[in-house]
Formats: sequence, structure tokens, C-alpha cells
Amino acid sequence: MNQTLYTIDLIGTFVFAISGALAGSGKKLDIFGATFLAFVTAVGGGTVRDLLIGSLPVGWIQDINYLIAILAGVVCTYFFKRYILPLKKTFFIFDTIGIAVFTILGMNKALGLGVHPVMAIMMGMVSAVVGGVIRDTLTNEIPLIFRQEIYATACIAGGISFWLVGFVSPFPVVNVGITILVIIAIRVLAIRNRWSLPGIG
Amino acid sequence: MNQTLYTIDLIGTFVFAISGALAGSGKKLDIFGATFLAFVTAVGGGTVRDLLIGSLPVGWIQDINYLIAILAGVVCTYFFKRYILPLKKTFFIFDTIGIAVFTILGMNKALGLGVHPVMAIMMGMVSAVVGGVIRDTLTNEIPLIFRQEIYATACIAGGISFWLVGFVSPFPVVNVGITILVIIAIRVLAIRNRWSLPGIG
Amino acid sequence: MNQTLYTIDLIGTFVFAISGALAGSGKKLDIFGATFLAFVTAVGGGTVRDLLIGSLPVGWIQDINYLIAILAGVVCTYFFKRYILPLKKTFFIFDTIGIAVFTILGMNKALGLGVHPVMAIMMGMVSAVVGGVIRDTLTNEIPLIFRQEIYATACIAGGISFWLVGFVSPFPVVNVGITILVIIAIRVLAIRNRWSLPGIG
Repeated sequence: MNQTLYTIDLIGTFVFAISGALAGSGKKLDIFGATFLAFVTAVGGGTVRDLLIGSLPVGWIQDINYLIAILAGVVCTYFFKRYILPLKKTFFIFDTIGIAVFTILGMNKALGLGVHPVMAIMMGMVSAVVGGVIRDTLTNEIPLIFRQEIYATACIAGGISFWLVGFVSPFPVVNVGITILVIIAIRVLAIRNRWSLPGIG
Repeated sequence: MNQTLYTIDLIGTFVFAISGALAGSGKKLDIFGATFLAFVTAVGGGTVRDLLIGSLPVGWIQDINYLIAILAGVVCTYFFKRYILPLKKTFFIFDTIGIAVFTILGMNKALGLGVHPVMAIMMGMVSAVVGGVIRDTLTNEIPLIFRQEIYATACIAGGISFWLVGFVSPFPVVNVGITILVIIAIRVLAIRNRWSLPGIG
Repeated sequence: MNQTLYTIDLIGTFVFAISGALAGSGKKLDIFGATFLAFVTAVGGGTVRDLLIGSLPVGWIQDINYLIAILAGVVCTYFFKRYILPLKKTFFIFDTIGIAVFTILGMNKALGLGVHPVMAIMMGMVSAVVGGVIRDTLTNEIPLIFRQEIYATACIAGGISFWLVGFVSPFPVVNVGITILVIIAIRVLAIRNRWSLPGIG
């Protein structure tokens, strides 16, 4: 189970790195800029979570596999950009599984350090969405998730589900599976039905 | 005394959250984006201070009341926006008391960890103003306090006052009171007389 | 040797502070905004490195000389701006020596905490370039190093050189000297020959 989550975590990192590298398109970035953006997009959320809960050094500094996953994402973007861009649906699926796993792992890490469950849910959401916020800020955009479709909300709902099911399910795998399904279901339904949160005006 | 400061700290957090939620106005943010901005505006300064001085996990993760104060600020903004906007003077007063208390608490925390007094004064100012800097950066604006009226300067003056009076006053309450008055006086005088710092050109 | 590196570190901090204070030109910043920018430009990279590797409180809070170097840079910018701006070549030299020393000191600090050499090279580069990234983000620009001439790349090459030479040279001074020369050589050659990294498209 942990091995499976770890593998999905690395795949999510790879997918986030591609999203970061692509954010440079049309902004005349060079390959270093694109790699920098890929990096902060992929590990920015987990880094902010680790800083807030005081789990230092941050996770990716202690495991070179995250760096490798990110560089692989940048290389793929550079050479296969024209083939990647049309794969929107594939991306959407991996991205959604990615944020689900980021949410679960982030929440688990916070709970393990004795953080209050409500704050742990927030830390799960932070792990999943803050990398994208930093990516957008560095490329001089107002963060997409501040106005976009249901995204962070899906992570929060998944976190609540993970917490509640944890009380009744003796098997972590069941809990993880349900949480991932909740997050995928909310995102898919939100896009199908064009759900959006009310604006602040 | 500590209880009083804690209460004002929560009120300051509530007022800062409203200022963050309002920052989204006219930028087409949804309620999640507004809440995110409210959060970083209210706790961003204290978070950066805690990170710099190494007091982790950061304060608000360990006390759910800050989250409650922030969510209350967002809910008020959402439902009572039309009534809040005209209350400029009320806001100004609470905001000024808020930055005064943020300065004092931030400085005290740094001093308690053995930080050099000059750096502790800076940490007090950071606690008070950095949340607004992050709010402005996320909404794609050059931070207001980089060009606005005397604001951070008032916090620094208050911090110096708090430090100096601490040598002669045996009563913390006197010290706190004088510091709050110094900060309020500087801000009010600065606005009345249109004081501003020289530009850098 | 350590004393020499420390001195160059302070000079680099002074030069970076001037570059930060000048970033405010034309943006109507006041002297506080310019000082804030000078500060984050000068210590931003080392701060992010210290946070990531968990070396808290961050370095500059424990040594008032960095604050003094930064304030000296701001004062110089304010009074001698017209004389400083034409000194482009002098600046280029000090800036390049500065990033070289920032790279070496950052890498050494990470290695001393048991960080993997590849990550330590990255931490050296982070120490040298992230201050500029924060400066550009706060002034609402896409970071210069995301599209500019060879800059971060020179730091990475210097870091690799520092690591490799460390295996064969028993004298740190030789290693430091070679690394500084590598970084200067790459930057000078890159500008002379208009080298640039490939774009990401």
C-alpha cells in the first residue's frame, strides 16, 4: 500500500512537472526557467506543508527520486510537447489521481506529527494546490484555482472523507480508494455540470 | 494582559481576513480564492516570522481559533460586504490596533527565542506587514506598502518604543499601551498631514 | 580562508542589496519599499536554502552584519544612484564573484547537514539566484533568470566543479578559487558569445 502510494506520488510529481514546464509556453522562458517552474509546481505544495508543520529538511531533499521524476517531466515536455498537448483527457486523469494522492499523503504526514485533524485536512489541500499557486504567481498570473472550477474544494472533500472513513474502516486501502474516488467524482461531475463556487463579487 | 493581547490578536486576524477577502473584489475570484487570500493576509506575516526564527510548527496550526476568526471574516465579507465597505474609519482603527498587537506579539516571540533586539523589532514589523505583501503579490499587484503612506514605519517606531520603554517600565501593560498609542499616533498623523517617505526615484 | 569567504559574502550581500534597491526605480517605490526589496534580494536565496534544509533560525537573523551591509547598500543607492548606474562593469564583476561565493557557501552548508551532493549543488544555486526571483516577483515581473543569459547554469557548473575538485584537492582554497573562476569564465564567455539556453517554446 505505501509502496503503491509512493509510486503514484512520483507519477503525480512527473505530471505536475509537465504542467509547470508547459506554463512557460508563450512566455519566452528558456529551459532553465521551465525547469524551475516544473520544480516549484511539482514540489511547492509539499514544501509549504513541510515548512508549516515543521518537518525539515523538506521531503524531496532527502529522496533524489523526486528530482529525477521532475527532470523526466521536463525532458518529456521539451521533446514531445506536440504529442503531449492533445492528451488533455489523459492528463486530467493523472492530474486528478495526483492531487488525490498528494492530499492523502499530506494529510497523513500532518496527522503523524500530531496536527489537529481539521488543520491536517487543510495541509492535505495545501500539498495538492499550492504548487500551482506558486507556478501562476511566478509567471505573473492570478492563480487559476482562485477562480477556476472546483479543484481545491475536491481536495478538501477528499480529506474530510479520508478522515471520516478512517473511523470505520480497518483497512487503509479501502480508505485511500474511497478518497481517490471522491476526489475524481467531484472533479468530473463539476466539469460535466459546469459547477462553480459562488464569486466574492 | 496576555489574555487581552490574545483577544486583540484574534480580532486583528478577523479584520485582516476581511481585508484579504475584499482584495479579491473586481478580480473575479470565487469564494475559495477569497478565503485563500483572507488566510494568507491574516496569518502570512506571523507565518514568515515563525519560519525565519524557527518556531515550528507555525502558531496558527496549533490553535484552531485563528482559522475560526478567518472563516468568520470571510463569511462576514460575503454576506455583509455592502455594509462593511463604508465603515472605512472603523476599519482603520481596528487595522491599526491589529498591526500594533501583531508587532508586539511578533517582537515578544522573537525576543523569547533569544533573537537580537534589532532583529526582533524587524520580526515585529514582518508579523504586521508581510501578510499584506503576500496578498498583493498573489493578486498581481506591487505591494501597497512599498509606496503607500507610513505603515511599516509606524510598526518599526512602535517596536523601538516597546524595546526602549521595556528598560524603564516594570509593568508590561504600560509598555504595551504606549506602543499601541505610538503606532496609532504615527498612522493618524501621517494620514492627516499626508506624510510620506521619500521615493527611491 | 573562512574569514575571506565571509568578507566576500558580506560584499556580495551589499552588491545584491543595491541591485534590489535599484529594482524599485521607475516603480514609484518609497524608501521602505526599496529597502524591503534590497533585503529580499540580498538574503532571499540563503533564506530559502536555510528553510529547505531546516537550518533555523535563518543565518542573517543571527548575524547583524548582514543587516548593516544591506542598509549600507540602500544608503549608497539613495545618495549615489547617478554615480552607481554607469558602473555596469564593476557591478558585473562583484555580482559574479558574489554569486560564486553564495554558491560555495550554500553548498557547503547543505553538505555539512548531510544533504546529498546533487541536492547540495542545487542548494548552492538556490542561494545565489532565488533572491533575484523573489525581487522580480514582488515588482510584478517574470523573473529575469527564467529567460536571461546563462546565470543559474553558471552556478550549477560551479557547484559541480566545487564538488569534483573537492575529491582531488587537499586545499579548500584551491577548490574555492577554481569554482569562482569557473563561474566567472562561464558568465563572461556567455555574454561575449551571446550564449543562451534553448527556449521551451
